[in-house]
Amino acid sequence: MGRRLTGVSAPAWLAAAGEGLGQDELALATRNHGLPLEAMRYDVTPPGLHYVLTHYDIPHVMDEAAWQLNVSGRVQHVLTLSTAQLRTYPAVTTRVTLECAGNGRALLSPRPVSQPWLVEAVGTAEWTGVPLRLLLDEAGVASDAVDVVFTGADHGVERGVEQDYQRSLPLDVATCEDPEVLVAYAMNGAPLPPQHGRPLRLVVPGWYGMAQVKWLCGITVTDTPFTGFQQSVAYRIRRESAEAGEPVTCIAPRALLIPPGFPDFMSRTRVVPPGPVLLEGRAWSGRAPVTSVDVSTDGGATWHPAELERDHGHRWSWRRWSRRWFAVPGDHVLSARATDEAGNTQPLEQPWNRGGFANNLVQRVPVFCPDPADTA
Amino acid sequence: MGRRLTGVSAPAWLAAAGEGLGQDELALATRNHGLPLEAMRYDVTPPGLHYVLTHYDIPHVMDEAAWQLNVSGRVQHVLTLSTAQLRTYPAVTTRVTLECAGNGRALLSPRPVSQPWLVEAVGTAEWTGVPLRLLLDEAGVASDAVDVVFTGADHGVERGVEQDYQRSLPLDVATCEDPEVLVAYAMNGAPLPPQHGRPLRLVVPGWYGMAQVKWLCGITVTDTPFTGFQQSVAYRIRRESAEAGEPVTCIAPRALLIPPGFPDFMSRTRVVPPGPVLLEGRAWSGRAPVTSVDVSTDGGATWHPAELERDHGHRWSWRRWSRRWFAVPGDHVLSARATDEAGNTQPLEQPWNRGGFANNLVQRVPVFCPDPADTA
Repeated sequence: MGRRLTGVSAPAWLAAAGEGLGQDELALATRNHGLPLEAMRYDVTPPGLHYVLTHYDIPHVMDEAAWQLNVSGRVQHVLTLSTAQLRTYPAVTTRVTLECAGNGRALLSPRPVSQPWLVEAVGTAEWTGVPLRLLLDEAGVASDAVDVVFTGADHGVERGVEQDYQRSLPLDVATCEDPEVLVAYAMNGAPLPPQHGRPLRLVVPGWYGMAQVKWLCGITVTDTPFTGFQQSVAYRIRRESAEAGEPVTCIAPRALLIPPGFPDFMSRTRVVPPGPVLLEGRAWSGRAPVTSVDVSTDGGATWHPAELERDHGHRWSWRRWSRRWFAVPGDHVLSARATDEAGNTQPLEQPWNRGGFANNLVQRVPVFCPDPADTA
Repeated sequence: MGRRLTGVSAPAWLAAAGEGLGQDELALATRNHGLPLEAMRYDVTPPGLHYVLTHYDIPHVMDEAAWQLNVSGRVQHVLTLSTAQLRTYPAVTTRVTLECAGNGRALLSPRPVSQPWLVEAVGTAEWTGVPLRLLLDEAGVASDAVDVVFTGADHGVERGVEQDYQRSLPLDVATCEDPEVLVAYAMNGAPLPPQHGRPLRLVVPGWYGMAQVKWLCGITVTDTPFTGFQQSVAYRIRRESAEAGEPVTCIAPRALLIPPGFPDFMSRTRVVPPGPVLLEGRAWSGRAPVTSVDVSTDGGATWHPAELERDHGHRWSWRRWSRRWFAVPGDHVLSARATDEAGNTQPLEQPWNRGGFANNLVQRVPVFCPDPADTA
């Protein structure tokens, strides 16, 4: 880890009961952004709508041709690869739904003070790149290798520790054939946008966003478990700060609704005219394929199966679901609940951890259906 | 105006002293987003980094080929134009800096509760489209015409009023040759992204964002001043809610810094190593060309002229400025202040209006310069 710079960082803290968001949470919320949920209509998220979280600054890459990816550590041959060289390797394109590990954090009580997501930190893209396992094969991983550490070029301070963003994967995940980890250089057929890691990023299908290291410049094979800040301090599921906690890994199942009707500007309350409505949305899980989605239109009192889009062959991408509803005048709360093949499902009551990670509480969407007789 | 739907809307209100942001402000902040200020390095903002504000939902355009733009009202010939037909007109490309009228709102005290921008609601793009004056010429504007009303396809409720988003321009602005208002179909050489108005939007160089009607489907020439919600209720500069107020129109001058050094994740405080630093940023004004930028590195006690990029021929685009600074250990507050040819400059003390519009208070960027002797 880097030097200590405690003066600019506050320790992690929880908001007091009922405490509104502060200027530091707002500064993150105005920089980063979620997917406007109506944009779940697109199978692949158009540029600029996919969620973005940048820990520090988007690095200023003056000359992409000069960018180098180094593969080193417990390997037989150190590799130094330009982006042009990487494009000579076999290319793989995978459609992947990514979700921030902190999605849902701002709904927790007490609220961990960090990037304040509601539920919208998600997006789906076609990522193109070189399978990481090919690069590790070529480098020749030593028999005592344990972890593979990925270093991004974004540099900053977090909880008093100056650092380049670094995360690791266990060797078996890094070299897996299904899912195949990618060193990606393209998103939706175009070079990566700056905010998504130009010129290179990692894509680890099924894992939360913290594993998808952007502005990738170093890959280091280690013979001891990696204990960097983002691995051992941040991105742990713990209730007390003294706990070691469990690491955040694969995405828990979640279903979200494309909000029906139209919104109020400020409250975002949805207005749905009376009559038939097609409720639809997306569902995903990084742990096992989604096998069912259930819908409630009465605040969770009763649940009914949605129609799930048939298998589209993109295992690591969200799937569309839908169910018809007949809206009658009054107030309603809509929800959808995904379950995956491993039996993971979404909780109906809010779990809590002090980082606000891996939330997948069932979404509640209040809608108002006006009585035509009441409005002039 | 549309029907009243008061149940889903609260009246406009001001946050209490010290009151943090609420969930409704957060719901807007997670959907919409500003420009990460380090992205001011780009002359033209890359896709996905330009600020976005959507009043209601991004409309779902099923079939762009079926989109129609109607030009009607006080005209001799009603026009109904497809996007393909619009592409047969002479095309104009203009580089324009757009800024949200509410930029800076979240720094006000008391804070008007709405989209909570700090200072980052800005971006620059190359917009391509048909000059509006050509369409109005072809339609034949009646001699009693006063306003031109633009209707977008985004539909919602605001302060109890159900509406399509509508704004007007005075006829002389709508038909002006310099700046030329565009009916734009491309951004940075590509079709408009959904969040920027696909398939058509208005671009009014020099005006705040509320005039840049997205998802444009109707242009109506009127013989009386337009009094729609977004013209007469919202986007007025007033201190008391009972005032008629002044309309929000052209962008006031503003300079912003590309934040130097590197940030703390949570506080966003900047850390700048001791030594020479090139302070740089952008400046713009919709009222007259920017003629000077002054920089302070001591919290506004003293000001020094920055070097302003020479005229690049893009009158409606921001201009780069820079000034060298030698950082010494300690805490500093950096600021930049733009002045335009008409003598408009940025205030050093915060003005206030209850909509939080047209703010251009000088930015204050706290930086910490560590003493190399103090850090291990």
